Amino acid sequence: MDNTQGLVVVGSVAFDTIEARGVRKEMVLGGSGSFFCTAASYFTPVKLVAVVGDDFPKVHLDFFASRGISTEGLIRAPGKTFHWSGRYADDLASRQSLATELNVFADFKPKLPDAWRESEFIFLGNIHPSLQLDVLTQIRRPRLVAMDTMNFWIEGQLEALKRVLERVDLLVINDEEARMLAGQHNLPRAARAIRAMGPKTVIVKRGDSGALLFHENGVFAAPAYPLEEVVDPTGAGDTFAGGFMGYLARVRDLGPQAVRRAMFYGSVMASFCVEAFSLDRMRELSTGEIEGRYRAFRDLTHFEDVRL
Amino acid sequence: MDNTQGLVVVGSVAFDTIEARGVRKEMVLGGSGSFFCTAASYFTPVKLVAVVGDDFPKVHLDFFASRGISTEGLIRAPGKTFHWSGRYADDLASRQSLATELNVFADFKPKLPDAWRESEFIFLGNIHPSLQLDVLTQIRRPRLVAMDTMNFWIEGQLEALKRVLERVDLLVINDEEARMLAGQHNLPRAARAIRAMGPKTVIVKRGDSGALLFHENGVFAAPAYPLEEVVDPTGAGDTFAGGFMGYLARVRDLGPQAVRRAMFYGSVMASFCVEAFSLDRMRELSTGEIEGRYRAFRDLTHFEDVRL
Repeated sequence: MDNTQGLVVVGSVAFDTIEARGVRKEMVLGGSGSFFCTAASYFTPVKLVAVVGDDFPKVHLDFFASRGISTEGLIRAPGKTFHWSGRYADDLASRQSLATELNVFADFKPKLPDAWRESEFIFLGNIHPSLQLDVLTQIRRPRLVAMDTMNFWIEGQLEALKRVLERVDLLVINDEEARMLAGQHNLPRAARAIRAMGPKTVIVKRGDSGALLFHENGVFAAPAYPLEEVVDPTGAGDTFAGGFMGYLARVRDLGPQAVRRAMFYGSVMASFCVEAFSLDRMRELSTGEIEGRYRAFRDLTHFEDVRL
Repeated sequence: MDNTQGLVVVGSVAFDTIEARGVRKEMVLGGSGSFFCTAASYFTPVKLVAVVGDDFPKVHLDFFASRGISTEGLIRAPGKTFHWSGRYADDLASRQSLATELNVFADFKPKLPDAWRESEFIFLGNIHPSLQLDVLTQIRRPRLVAMDTMNFWIEGQLEALKRVLERVDLLVINDEEARMLAGQHNLPRAARAIRAMGPKTVIVKRGDSGALLFHENGVFAAPAYPLEEVVDPTGAGDTFAGGFMGYLARVRDLGPQAVRRAMFYGSVMASFCVEAFSLDRMRELSTGEIEGRYRAFRDLTHFEDVRL
């Protein structure tokens, strides 16, 4: 394979323990990196940079392999895998973190296999900004660098975060985090303030209100699909980013139309993600299922135009 | 004029006293009927059924006349005009009602001028369900009947409300009210439950997350325009309904594509509404401004499709 192809992602691989509407799932596969690369794998080869403990079972590695995800950059360290535990409110709109045990993640030093340093499409998942920067400096000639972050880093590591922001093309962030980072409630203004920090493009994820893209060509709104059955929203944002970046890495087109289609593919993958716990709904999707959902999304917003 | 043309609306005409972000406007023109018919007047002749007190100034009647709004069904009763007062939170996302003085509205008995009874497009604004039903029974052969309601009637007049719902084609309602009426948090399920109560079509307004249309042809999502300057959200929902119904009454086409375009025209008018206090931004819009904003909305969601 041409080393410039595909997509490098650094993120967390974790065990999640989740409670939602009276159902409890213990130690299921989770983490931003897992969701991201599973979604992206439907579009392009994915190279995962992450760390797991010696308790991480082969069955999960086999799953990554089955999805064509390269794990040469996945370090297996002595100790326990990162563990997150959370409980959702009945409306699934808010959640409470019950435990965040970094374990082997606390001493993670990402190291890219040499061949991966030629990659052009990079996603810096939601980890310490210094680690994001560390990964970025290992890439020789990046073409599109996107990143995620969260309130924890905005509050505690703002200077480090700003150094990463200066060097990325695109930030994917949720609405509350965008407001916090910009110190501005109005989202178009918050996005403008963030774009002045570095990333030319800002995607604001709004949960079941969809996602907004702010860039030099203006604003684009992708809806969330109004699903009757939502089981577990964990990972939906990472999955959106995976579908989005996976599509762009596949078509290798960064024009405004391709970016809009990528927003829809991100939304499509996120709509599958929330239909089951962990990333189970995305273990084995067919092209027909993805294209069918994509058409349903298009039907949700498109119409024939007629002059008034 | 052919008596079947245009649009009949019953709703409130009020004085509003509004506080938003440190600005206070006293006794400005408001009420669901005022917002609705001003928005609709850009598309079709509007016939307003409402009541005002003897304190209602001629300048407002002149404004209605300037917009081609017929006020033959606007009763002038002894006493004071309906007065509402509210204060918005700094993010404009929530508000507190400070006063609701019904005044002449308390004894309102809507009476349609005889010629208006031939009208085919009817909007029953947010008033007591018994009054909505009273207006509806005065219409001879309605073609499209839409209505709005609010938590106050859902909580206090549910049986009367259900009798109206059985007889209307379309309900326009906000998300929290839809959840309350259906007893169901999930919006697609709530919409399905409401459709079983009568209206074949349900539009759920979600503020700055746009609006969702649920009907036999599936779901349609219209975004809200991400505005950098929102001054006063009062009346945005009524204005949306006015643009929506006004467009349909103009094109006299109830097919799924026309209904989708109507959702966009409703959103266009609502986006103007929030840019100023009262209905001031809608006093004098040009066709160019409306069409320009419509194109901006289209650009917000449309893209060229390419098979993956």
